Amino acid sequence: MNTSVIRFILGYVVGFLGLFLMLPIMVALIYHEDVWIYYAVVAFPCLIIGILNSYFRPKKFVFYLKEGFFCTGASWVALSVIGALPLRLSGEIPHYVDALFEAVSGFTTTGASILDNVELLTHASLFWRSFTHFVGGMGVLVFLLTVIPLAGGEGSQFNLMKAESPGPSVGKLVPKLKNTAQMLYLIYIGLTLLEFILLLIAGMTPFEAINTSIATAGTGGFGIYANSIAGFNVACQWIVAIFMFIFGVNFNFYYYLLFHHARDAFRMEEVKMYTALTVGSIGIITINILNSSANLFEAVTKAAFQVTSIQSSTGFSTADFAQWPQTSRCVLVLLMFIGACAGSTGGGIKVSRFVLMGKAVHKELISYIHPRSVRKTRMDGKPVNHDTIRSNNVFFGTFMLIFFVSVFALSFEDLDFSTIFTAVIATMSNIGPGLSMVGPAANFAFFSDFSKIILIFDMLAGRLELFPILMLFHPNIWTDLFKKRRCKELKHAGKVLKK
Amino acid sequence: MNTSVIRFILGYVVGFLGLFLMLPIMVALIYHEDVWIYYAVVAFPCLIIGILNSYFRPKKFVFYLKEGFFCTGASWVALSVIGALPLRLSGEIPHYVDALFEAVSGFTTTGASILDNVELLTHASLFWRSFTHFVGGMGVLVFLLTVIPLAGGEGSQFNLMKAESPGPSVGKLVPKLKNTAQMLYLIYIGLTLLEFILLLIAGMTPFEAINTSIATAGTGGFGIYANSIAGFNVACQWIVAIFMFIFGVNFNFYYYLLFHHARDAFRMEEVKMYTALTVGSIGIITINILNSSANLFEAVTKAAFQVTSIQSSTGFSTADFAQWPQTSRCVLVLLMFIGACAGSTGGGIKVSRFVLMGKAVHKELISYIHPRSVRKTRMDGKPVNHDTIRSNNVFFGTFMLIFFVSVFALSFEDLDFSTIFTAVIATMSNIGPGLSMVGPAANFAFFSDFSKIILIFDMLAGRLELFPILMLFHPNIWTDLFKKRRCKELKHAGKVLKK
Repeated sequence: MNTSVIRFILGYVVGFLGLFLMLPIMVALIYHEDVWIYYAVVAFPCLIIGILNSYFRPKKFVFYLKEGFFCTGASWVALSVIGALPLRLSGEIPHYVDALFEAVSGFTTTGASILDNVELLTHASLFWRSFTHFVGGMGVLVFLLTVIPLAGGEGSQFNLMKAESPGPSVGKLVPKLKNTAQMLYLIYIGLTLLEFILLLIAGMTPFEAINTSIATAGTGGFGIYANSIAGFNVACQWIVAIFMFIFGVNFNFYYYLLFHHARDAFRMEEVKMYTALTVGSIGIITINILNSSANLFEAVTKAAFQVTSIQSSTGFSTADFAQWPQTSRCVLVLLMFIGACAGSTGGGIKVSRFVLMGKAVHKELISYIHPRSVRKTRMDGKPVNHDTIRSNNVFFGTFMLIFFVSVFALSFEDLDFSTIFTAVIATMSNIGPGLSMVGPAANFAFFSDFSKIILIFDMLAGRLELFPILMLFHPNIWTDLFKKRRCKELKHAGKVLKK
Repeated sequence: MNTSVIRFILGYVVGFLGLFLMLPIMVALIYHEDVWIYYAVVAFPCLIIGILNSYFRPKKFVFYLKEGFFCTGASWVALSVIGALPLRLSGEIPHYVDALFEAVSGFTTTGASILDNVELLTHASLFWRSFTHFVGGMGVLVFLLTVIPLAGGEGSQFNLMKAESPGPSVGKLVPKLKNTAQMLYLIYIGLTLLEFILLLIAGMTPFEAINTSIATAGTGGFGIYANSIAGFNVACQWIVAIFMFIFGVNFNFYYYLLFHHARDAFRMEEVKMYTALTVGSIGIITINILNSSANLFEAVTKAAFQVTSIQSSTGFSTADFAQWPQTSRCVLVLLMFIGACAGSTGGGIKVSRFVLMGKAVHKELISYIHPRSVRKTRMDGKPVNHDTIRSNNVFFGTFMLIFFVSVFALSFEDLDFSTIFTAVIATMSNIGPGLSMVGPAANFAFFSDFSKIILIFDMLAGRLELFPILMLFHPNIWTDLFKKRRCKELKHAGKVLKK
């Protein structure tokens, strides 16, 4: 493994984390909160590491998928471990595992909290929580690609981006990958700004609007009020709902729409299916909760908000859907598994994976009916690479295996089935709230440290699409990492002997 | 499609069903029950159809996987629809959908019942319920292969057997498939007889022993008492537990053990994993329920019985495990998904599928670490066919899709999450009891007809490993079926015109 380039990239990640931590310091200074000191204590060492790091450029920039995956896994662990420190140091979250849970929940855009009452937090910490969503939504390595001069060729950069981008396959929108990454961030920031402005117009304060818009953009779900979005007016709720839907759409859609033929955008099967699922679910839930709502409009508003929130994996809430009738709850749990589009900021298994799986099942069925027929699986009119289909199939199996093992690990707490089941899926799909004891009105504080660590693993595994995190646990990767060093040591020992 | 051979096989299936129905008639006559008339009313037309059918032999016996799958799906539907009639006609189950549920539950070896109190049934009907397990356990088409002269070559017979045998791939034990089928039935009947004799010695009455042993053999789970096996002594419980384990083992194991090198038997990875899972689960549950048990022996007995019952997909019970602590319940639910070995009479996704999936996940991970390495997946030391792996991966996805759709369909009943969830998995994996409202102390009577039909579909889909049943819903198969007839009609019309 090219350890020096891994060190270089990790150094940059830590350096940028230092820069990001400047933002809560500014917020603290604006609101005259003493908490800025704890953010500064963490930020400055990070900045120093980042600056020093940039002086020691690696000799070779070439790296493969292995390094890309390892870098991604390690970067996210580093972000979370360091990002949790200010929350712990300030005493706002007195237990480090809790602070880590909160930070991982932030960066992975899950939005599951261990806090009983978020309103007790300082403005700086509230902002930091929301901002971690913004960083995690599009991905920190994708961000790196947009700003730092990463030599090493397109191939290397592609290996970095592939590991962090959600969905079965990464396509380049424009010939240069760097420009693709910039384009994605441009769309991302543009949409966030638009939401911010609309929320201001609809009546939010600037602090509310900025927190809500960046948490929506990353499809995160940390709210700044204990009742999430329920306290805002209906206009704000609809704006948030619409933007949750928007951030769950594959970003290629916006690229095609803005810079390309709009026809390509509307030909995307995944976006069509995502829209159909959203509209269908809203319809079913509206009918289901109509009896318990004041009128049709209220039912539609609640249903639309909750469906877009869960399907985009955001996790904001305007109602305690854990109290809704079974049909509505069931639709929401199924949406938790399905999740958003690939190439969006949302989580879950992804709509395109289900579309591909549906096609694979149909192909399997056809292969029994007409064994000699050779049919190419197509998506958006283009044939799908054989390897993509295989990876997709294996992804389902891996997801199920991790899901089952996590449910088993959590079962050592004597909790009811739907709490455990939905706690695992809500973290693996980066949603946030589940049902029963982890419903929207509750939080994750009551879990043991062991269970919290399992859920932390699930959040990271879910956000990075399983393999970059699983790889960190594979012995081969660590022997590879230390083999080179041992080779060097052996070489050195050889030279000493010669002398 | 070769419709005449399909008609021929279906005719034989119906004919044999008529023969099978002679058995409950005999039981009724022994116990002087009037119910024999209803069995006779159904049996005789079946026998007549069977006899007439055997006179009209098809011209061509050749058929492909398509015909094999269609035949299997159609045969099982026919068995269930006709097998339910005596229960309905005798008035013991007054509603036909209920009777169908009970019959499908019997043939698919599920053992989920809609009866509040089975002890109200006549001896004949109790025996018929148990006997459907015995027929369904090894498969009715496999039975056909052992007895009727099915010309058409090995390939055709193989296509018939493949559709009905559980597991990722069917291997021939001996060169001729007919002999393989006979060998399997020999082992099946031999083991059943052994259990019957042991149960007699342990103190059961002949009627109890015969019902219990044939229901164990098929890994079914219909009991003849309301409290299932709990009323029998500990010796009987252990005998049943051990035989449930035995019938969940891949039958190739016994073939190797008896007729081949025993070394091959103990090299089977699936059997090792199945044993490890059983022992591990018994261990965890024993510790977990130790506090609520009188002593260690009682805890082990209960744990061993429940684990073997669930993992082999039988569904007998000696305790209401729905009341056990969460860890035990969770282990049992996970075992419901895993199920028994391929090539056994048990259900579930099958241990070998999980072993293969684990290998696929590991291979995927290795492919990221060493992209150029070419590793062949191996099972029991032999390389696994690429198509088998692909089918296996697709199977997981298909299982998940059907599972989700069923959970969704059932959610229209306002029931708690764990009832719906476990009702679906308990039927899809052909277990029988689930948790909450479908626990061992409860039954499936309260579901609406719509839900019952969904569960009937799940039982059939689970027993036949999804595709033969899914195929019945594919439009291509029906157009194929009627195309030939239309061709004939057109030809006939052509001749008429010429004249």
